Amino acid sequence: MAELHLHPDRFLPTDPATRAIARQLLDAVEASPIISPHGHTDPRWFARDEPFEDAVSLLLWPDHYVLRMLYSRGIGLGELGLKAADAGPVETDRRKIWRLFAANYFLFRGTPSRIWLDHAFATVFGLEVSLDAQNADHYFDLINARLATPQFRPRALFEAFNIDALATTEGALDPLDHHSQIRDSGWKGRVITTFRPDDVVDPDREDFARNLDLLADLTGGETDTFEGYLAAIAQRRLYFREVGGATATDHGHPSARTADLDPGERRRLFDRVRKGGGKAEDAELFRAQMLTEMAAMSVEDGMVMQLHPGSYRNHNPWLFKHYGRDRGADIPRRVGFVEELKPLLDRFGNSSALKLILFTLDESAYARELAPLAGHYPALTLGPAWWFHDSAEGMMRYRRQTTETAGFYNTAGFNDDTRAFLSIPARHNLARRMDCAYLAELVASHRLSPSEAMETAIDLTYRLPKAAYRL
Amino acid sequence: MAELHLHPDRFLPTDPATRAIARQLLDAVEASPIISPHGHTDPRWFARDEPFEDAVSLLLWPDHYVLRMLYSRGIGLGELGLKAADAGPVETDRRKIWRLFAANYFLFRGTPSRIWLDHAFATVFGLEVSLDAQNADHYFDLINARLATPQFRPRALFEAFNIDALATTEGALDPLDHHSQIRDSGWKGRVITTFRPDDVVDPDREDFARNLDLLADLTGGETDTFEGYLAAIAQRRLYFREVGGATATDHGHPSARTADLDPGERRRLFDRVRKGGGKAEDAELFRAQMLTEMAAMSVEDGMVMQLHPGSYRNHNPWLFKHYGRDRGADIPRRVGFVEELKPLLDRFGNSSALKLILFTLDESAYARELAPLAGHYPALTLGPAWWFHDSAEGMMRYRRQTTETAGFYNTAGFNDDTRAFLSIPARHNLARRMDCAYLAELVASHRLSPSEAMETAIDLTYRLPKAAYRL
Amino acid sequence: MAELHLHPDRFLPTDPATRAIARQLLDAVEASPIISPHGHTDPRWFARDEPFEDAVSLLLWPDHYVLRMLYSRGIGLGELGLKAADAGPVETDRRKIWRLFAANYFLFRGTPSRIWLDHAFATVFGLEVSLDAQNADHYFDLINARLATPQFRPRALFEAFNIDALATTEGALDPLDHHSQIRDSGWKGRVITTFRPDDVVDPDREDFARNLDLLADLTGGETDTFEGYLAAIAQRRLYFREVGGATATDHGHPSARTADLDPGERRRLFDRVRKGGGKAEDAELFRAQMLTEMAAMSVEDGMVMQLHPGSYRNHNPWLFKHYGRDRGADIPRRVGFVEELKPLLDRFGNSSALKLILFTLDESAYARELAPLAGHYPALTLGPAWWFHDSAEGMMRYRRQTTETAGFYNTAGFNDDTRAFLSIPARHNLARRMDCAYLAELVASHRLSPSEAMETAIDLTYRLPKAAYRL
Repeated sequence: MAELHLHPDRFLPTDPATRAIARQLLDAVEASPIISPHGHTDPRWFARDEPFEDAVSLLLWPDHYVLRMLYSRGIGLGELGLKAADAGPVETDRRKIWRLFAANYFLFRGTPSRIWLDHAFATVFGLEVSLDAQNADHYFDLINARLATPQFRPRALFEAFNIDALATTEGALDPLDHHSQIRDSGWKGRVITTFRPDDVVDPDREDFARNLDLLADLTGGETDTFEGYLAAIAQRRLYFREVGGATATDHGHPSARTADLDPGERRRLFDRVRKGGGKAEDAELFRAQMLTEMAAMSVEDGMVMQLHPGSYRNHNPWLFKHYGRDRGADIPRRVGFVEELKPLLDRFGNSSALKLILFTLDESAYARELAPLAGHYPALTLGPAWWFHDSAEGMMRYRRQTTETAGFYNTAGFNDDTRAFLSIPARHNLARRMDCAYLAELVASHRLSPSEAMETAIDLTYRLPKAAYRL
Repeated sequence: MAELHLHPDRFLPTDPATRAIARQLLDAVEASPIISPHGHTDPRWFARDEPFEDAVSLLLWPDHYVLRMLYSRGIGLGELGLKAADAGPVETDRRKIWRLFAANYFLFRGTPSRIWLDHAFATVFGLEVSLDAQNADHYFDLINARLATPQFRPRALFEAFNIDALATTEGALDPLDHHSQIRDSGWKGRVITTFRPDDVVDPDREDFARNLDLLADLTGGETDTFEGYLAAIAQRRLYFREVGGATATDHGHPSARTADLDPGERRRLFDRVRKGGGKAEDAELFRAQMLTEMAAMSVEDGMVMQLHPGSYRNHNPWLFKHYGRDRGADIPRRVGFVEELKPLLDRFGNSSALKLILFTLDESAYARELAPLAGHYPALTLGPAWWFHDSAEGMMRYRRQTTETAGFYNTAGFNDDTRAFLSIPARHNLARRMDCAYLAELVASHRLSPSEAMETAIDLTYRLPKAAYRL
Repeated sequence: MAELHLHPDRFLPTDPATRAIARQLLDAVEASPIISPHGHTDPRWFARDEPFEDAVSLLLWPDHYVLRMLYSRGIGLGELGLKAADAGPVETDRRKIWRLFAANYFLFRGTPSRIWLDHAFATVFGLEVSLDAQNADHYFDLINARLATPQFRPRALFEAFNIDALATTEGALDPLDHHSQIRDSGWKGRVITTFRPDDVVDPDREDFARNLDLLADLTGGETDTFEGYLAAIAQRRLYFREVGGATATDHGHPSARTADLDPGERRRLFDRVRKGGGKAEDAELFRAQMLTEMAAMSVEDGMVMQLHPGSYRNHNPWLFKHYGRDRGADIPRRVGFVEELKPLLDRFGNSSALKLILFTLDESAYARELAPLAGHYPALTLGPAWWFHDSAEGMMRYRRQTTETAGFYNTAGFNDDTRAFLSIPARHNLARRMDCAYLAELVASHRLSPSEAMETAIDLTYRLPKAAYRL
């Protein structure tokens, strides 16, 4: 059996002198508290603080990176225990599911999933051998036994992970009951929400009309006029701030397109999408206009705005029909920012009151569009390497392609953006290592002094994410 | 005169400790047999086993990489001995042509052509000085003398190169006489064909109508209805498998667009392109539909499907008119896969019975589209770095940009895709070196254990290409 | 206070053996004369040879890289002393402006601006501490004192910088008075102009019609017919060659689109744009046609043609309205070359008489389009990494992504493209270092011999730019 050992110099540069510099930088930031300003963990965990069920439901099922890789190699989601209408037999023996995963763990060689999982196995569960078919049962039994103990409850892990602040993400209609419960519980962990209004902003959703009715009910207002609709959204934003501690909004749009129509056009566009059955391009235009409306609200209420464009959601209709969202079938595509953001920037780009954090799945935009935009407009900040690019190579490409034009100080520090709670320390640890690796290269090639690199490493780890999210 | 020396550590990482790891990996795979599942060597060579003519006709004329570089620096193709109607004088003195090439060999510094040629010069011909104007005659005489000996005949070289299987590529109408001859000869070398139906699938070709008539004649069927046409193609696929040992098809389309029209639309579209003179977009739509038809046939007959999109063929009309195809004037352009492949994937993407190997000339698609697609759909596999990117830097970019999302096991190993027979060992050697270099970096930065890297190196070299092509 | 020390090995590879190779190469080229064939320094400086005013007006105001970074972090251009109509208060105390810059100098960590400025501070002014808030006054006083001395006048610096030839850029209507004055002065410094006809070629400019009237006046011809217009332009090209010593033209177009309309269409298109108020797409088509016309003239008169496409100029309308051009609000966007250049290349691509140097802000085109085009067409040469990519990482990406397909000898050597005179030695020094770093990697990985690398380093530094610009 192979040893599971997290080498203290993992991911650092291979050149010994450069590695030594990186090591010094890392020593200063590795133990820093975690700021997690954007993610998708379940607030119910921290509200109820019940034990996690078992290894499969905690580590496999919520992790679309794991599901997608296994699925790509011909392993059916039913074999992994996921239930579906009309999609064949479902494995219910959790141990068998874990064994299947273990036997295929080699597929993750060279991927961030492997890095994150090994980190959790070693640091959270104290495992000392590398997962494979032979030790699958040892893993399964040990993990399940640990999860049943008090030190492995959500709040205990939150504290053990040294998390300063953790943001979850909720839709505009969410009552935020879990966040209320957390606040009322007297527990000191800072779990805040993020306002994600896609459900009431995207006319392409089947439930759009119903959601607007619910929005009216929830706010005691009306959503049959554009003015009423905007007022209802503004009210929900206030609710998210007051009840959920939100400091940010998040917008997951197919493209980065924005619009700034004149008042009459806005109203007519709203009327068409409110009723349904308008022109084909109405939905895209409405989403575009709504980004500008959200920016306007952010200028007023101070909420940081995040834009996550460019994912083709649910690309696989068969999988979507049988297994639903977030199973690994979201595929990135080309995204443009220069023309697309212009209407919004024409109105608010010169305002320091707006803080718009941009993400991309299209890395070709880093050096060409995003760094030049963020290196000019006061309103813009670059979010970190996102999703598929939240990886050793991905983070290095991000720094190499953005720093020379945007600098370090137009970036937002790290986001883990995960629903896999146990991967949070691993992801932040990797981000710190890659930042230190990059900074060490700058020092070793005499582009930055050691003391500047040290200050920058601390800024990237702690000061910048706090400032970017107004935490 | 400069020494020609293939350093045993060439292309490996420069950091000494990382290089030592790469060296160990390479020792395990460098001498492995060559699997060459996609290429363009001439089957006549292996059927007839006649001596190659001389250095110029073997090493220069079939190599569009060499022609394009010389041409780009103002050297006319006539000066290189290529004949053309109305394009000026043609040099017929082969020695003079070779001298011209030798005097300009410095142009290839830093290019893969230089790597491939030096490898052939040193390992095939035993040359010990680096080619330049001074030793041009020495090269010319020595190469020509060797080519006249039995050890330099095609089959002897095939065996000396340790080739396990070599695939050529033939059009749908090819009688496969050379392949029959090879099989009947009793020679043990495995030379198989690949079914490339572009000539009967692409309505933009001037000979499309004539090719469909020939297809009807050849199969004894008819190609005036869509059903008859598809049946005729299926029959040719069977012929290619039975007579030529084909396990794969290959499709060289301008884009990756696919379509899945309803039966009536398909028939009407076929009727229009069969007659000619339909709508402007018919040709693209027909090619798109035919990719889906080919996938359907692959699901039936088990042939692996390869898609090579994104080359603007014959970009230079003057050159095409005078010198024809494959002279170095094919230029890559942007390719999208996400929307384009969706119709085909909607039908067959979840099927492990389909094996569709994707290539690209647009590297921006690696991390953005191809790795995410291959890391989700069971039907998809990533082909290796292709054409212009079949190079030291190109292969390293490929691994860096695909591994973290697709892993190693959704990739197909290496293809040489060459018509330059003598470059085959060089190309595979380089691919092995770059894979070992990449794996060594993962080991040196503690992302992979040495034993995992070793197993992966062997898989990439041998097991994956055999599996990907069902060899 | 931190020491300001330009380490002799800065920017070279971190691996010690590779660094030693790079060092040897650099020793051979670091002191070579500077060829600066494309830039935007002010010819008035060399004509009048008056002292530069002070640190702020010399180092901050003309440097849009510096302005954009400060602006992006919320520092108003008024705070930096830039005047604007209706844009709030303007700081007039130069010392206060310098202090503001110094206090924010940390923003430039990791950027080329930092590299260029530190180089000028150390080598031009002899400063020995790194700029920060504490030593702002020391910097300000020392720089201003030096600028008042004869050794810091423009011509003295030009000579101290060891500049062989420096090209400025002037619009088609410029009288070239400063160039005449330089020539008449008897000073030996070679300052030449470049013909940049955008003002008389781009119908989207508000002053287009007026410029054509001026062009008629200036040439004594007429610009109301296409023939007269072309003749007037040809005459200005002659004037630029004879009076300004120009060897090149430069074209800053939104896209790389070219056209080759038939004579009747050309005339009708000209008539429409001459009168104004034609079709919306006329301007783009006219610019496209004019690139081909310029190529035709270049074939006749031997002027090297430069194409700089893909910048969205003045993306920020508020900033443009108040502060005008070149304040850091030009944003790159996607550029295609394959279809776009085809009409021009169909006419002139096979001609060695045309020399068209291509630049890009869209690095995804390097390996996909530009290197393949330049590695085939005799008329094409690749310009260096441009603008935002004129940086350590940017230049390394350029070599890595272009060399394998285009080789070194289809590239033009380095351009500084700057209006920041004091940054010229820094930029050339950095380019030499990055080329030597890249070549050293090739040597260390046994892809190139040491003597070939040495010859190539010298070619890239001196021979190639001289040849590319026919200097």
